[in-house]
Amino acid sequence: MTTPGSRLVVVSMGDPAGIGREVILKAAAVLARKRNPPALAVVGDLAAMSAASRDLRITTPKPYGWTRNSPLPRLRDGLAVINVGKLRASALRAARPSIAGGDAAYRYIVEGSRMALAGEAGALVTAPINKEWMNRAGHHFPGHSELIAGLANARDWRMMFAGTRLRIALATVHIGLAQVPAQLNAARVFGTIRLLNDHLRRQTGLDQPRIAVLGLNPHAGENGLFGGEERRMITPAIRRAQRAGIKAFGPVAPDTAFIRSHGRFGFDGAVAMYHDQGLIALKTLDFDRAVNITLGLPFVRTSPDHGTAYDIAGRGVANPTSMIAAIAYAAAAVRGMTSSADPTARAAARLAL
Amino acid sequence: MTTPGSRLVVVSMGDPAGIGREVILKAAAVLARKRNPPALAVVGDLAAMSAASRDLRITTPKPYGWTRNSPLPRLRDGLAVINVGKLRASALRAARPSIAGGDAAYRYIVEGSRMALAGEAGALVTAPINKEWMNRAGHHFPGHSELIAGLANARDWRMMFAGTRLRIALATVHIGLAQVPAQLNAARVFGTIRLLNDHLRRQTGLDQPRIAVLGLNPHAGENGLFGGEERRMITPAIRRAQRAGIKAFGPVAPDTAFIRSHGRFGFDGAVAMYHDQGLIALKTLDFDRAVNITLGLPFVRTSPDHGTAYDIAGRGVANPTSMIAAIAYAAAAVRGMTSSADPTARAAARLAL
Repeated sequence: MTTPGSRLVVVSMGDPAGIGREVILKAAAVLARKRNPPALAVVGDLAAMSAASRDLRITTPKPYGWTRNSPLPRLRDGLAVINVGKLRASALRAARPSIAGGDAAYRYIVEGSRMALAGEAGALVTAPINKEWMNRAGHHFPGHSELIAGLANARDWRMMFAGTRLRIALATVHIGLAQVPAQLNAARVFGTIRLLNDHLRRQTGLDQPRIAVLGLNPHAGENGLFGGEERRMITPAIRRAQRAGIKAFGPVAPDTAFIRSHGRFGFDGAVAMYHDQGLIALKTLDFDRAVNITLGLPFVRTSPDHGTAYDIAGRGVANPTSMIAAIAYAAAAVRGMTSSADPTARAAARLAL
Repeated sequence: MTTPGSRLVVVSMGDPAGIGREVILKAAAVLARKRNPPALAVVGDLAAMSAASRDLRITTPKPYGWTRNSPLPRLRDGLAVINVGKLRASALRAARPSIAGGDAAYRYIVEGSRMALAGEAGALVTAPINKEWMNRAGHHFPGHSELIAGLANARDWRMMFAGTRLRIALATVHIGLAQVPAQLNAARVFGTIRLLNDHLRRQTGLDQPRIAVLGLNPHAGENGLFGGEERRMITPAIRRAQRAGIKAFGPVAPDTAFIRSHGRFGFDGAVAMYHDQGLIALKTLDFDRAVNITLGLPFVRTSPDHGTAYDIAGRGVANPTSMIAAIAYAAAAVRGMTSSADPTARAAARLAL
């Protein structure tokens, strides 16, 4: 963990017909002006990045050959691009996804993940892809996270979201609401608590982050009146976490869990039982600033919380806030991981949120 | 609808051992200072109200005999109390619920509902009760709303919540999450849209309120990938509402439904499929100010969005904000109903939210 590579953040370029290139370039321009810019490199297509930068008139991309012992790229010198391959012009047309583009987006993720697994990079940030066209290109994955978890051989991983004020890990994600009760069990809830606790310790520098565990049912079941999952699964998972030294508490009534007292939540992170339970609160408070984080990988992985946005692709109006947040979160995480005992790094990690 | 009675708001006193008397008195004191105070009367125990007012040193209760053609009580002259019966001192001890108190709380609701049904009052606001002790007193109802709906012979009623910025009606309420998909159907969703539309027309004066109908599943099902309820029930209900001239739209992805653009939601009211889907958003934005409204009754019924709060009962520290909001919402509703064509009443209705 002490090679320069462990502090490099690589960004996969995403679907070339979406807003990925634009938000990466805009984010790089903003981050280059910060006092302590992250070491950043794009994994993608140099010519495509250069074409977008000419349109936007910001941030000059430059070719970059990187090995784990090279000096880190500096954003003030331009945006480093690790050139995976050259796309034809037809794959670069805004809002016109193609098989070539879907295939390229896949290869950027594979190369970015390889770098992170080999210690050549500490974190992978992923720009949005088009799942349908990635599938048409012959790469069959339900989504980004599943693909990366597969490449990393991670079996027990979770999706987490961080806004400016909330950090929420999800016990279940992209399934119908009717499937949620059947997919939940004490081991899955406990695993989510444990992964969130590990992440918060590294990311915030807190020794014992307080973790609120939500109930599944209205009023957290009201003593079994509205469903028994709290008693059967959630309370046992919380007890197990407490026995393991984790400061978890609950089950908390979902509707009042996110009420602030004097502007503060009563926890450092929360575990939600299903997608909308966590994301309604997070997006209502923090849309455009949310970062998607994959817990349980051997490296840091974040992504902005938006898609390819074909409706505005190529028009220069895309909002880079979520991409900036995703890169800053990843950069803080790799700094925290390389020197977690350093109070300065801890403070930086907190500020970067 | 033109007798003075239709503009009277009655408040049932609730559980005598809880914070009901305190928040009623504090709310009356605040509302008495408004430019246009509501016509308000408590249905409860005069001696008990007087005892609480002496402790708090505010708002003198006074006995009140009311018929539908009497002049309306004026808050500036004191708080009118319609005396239903005298409680023993033992039923008045803070945080000590009793069978006598549970029975009395029940009788206040019955009398308040009777007055509203007879046209002697236009709205009923209910202070919190203790369901367990109401049941022990021999009155078996799962809750306030069920009791009142039963007294009013209302078969198709819904629970709705209003904050300072959000109005949300719930298609299902106090059931386990696992039961939600089975309880939903197109008729229930349509009924919720229709009841909310009727209410918003009266309450806001808008001819065609815009109603956002949420999906049940993550991303509103993502074209059937995460559950088929959107296609089978929710979209048909929205189409039916549109054919009936209602400006309903959706299914909207639940997690992004409550994002504001320039501080405004993209709708006048929303229909949520289950308890926490609506209440996580509402309480995260508007705790302490939320009003619970029962749709589908022949009269207006609101209540504050908190319970008996025995932990702070009798200490003088209870927050009356939600009770003030519940009374103001009811008062605006009865004004709107008696003169819905009057633009001043419409403006007052909007302001009172």
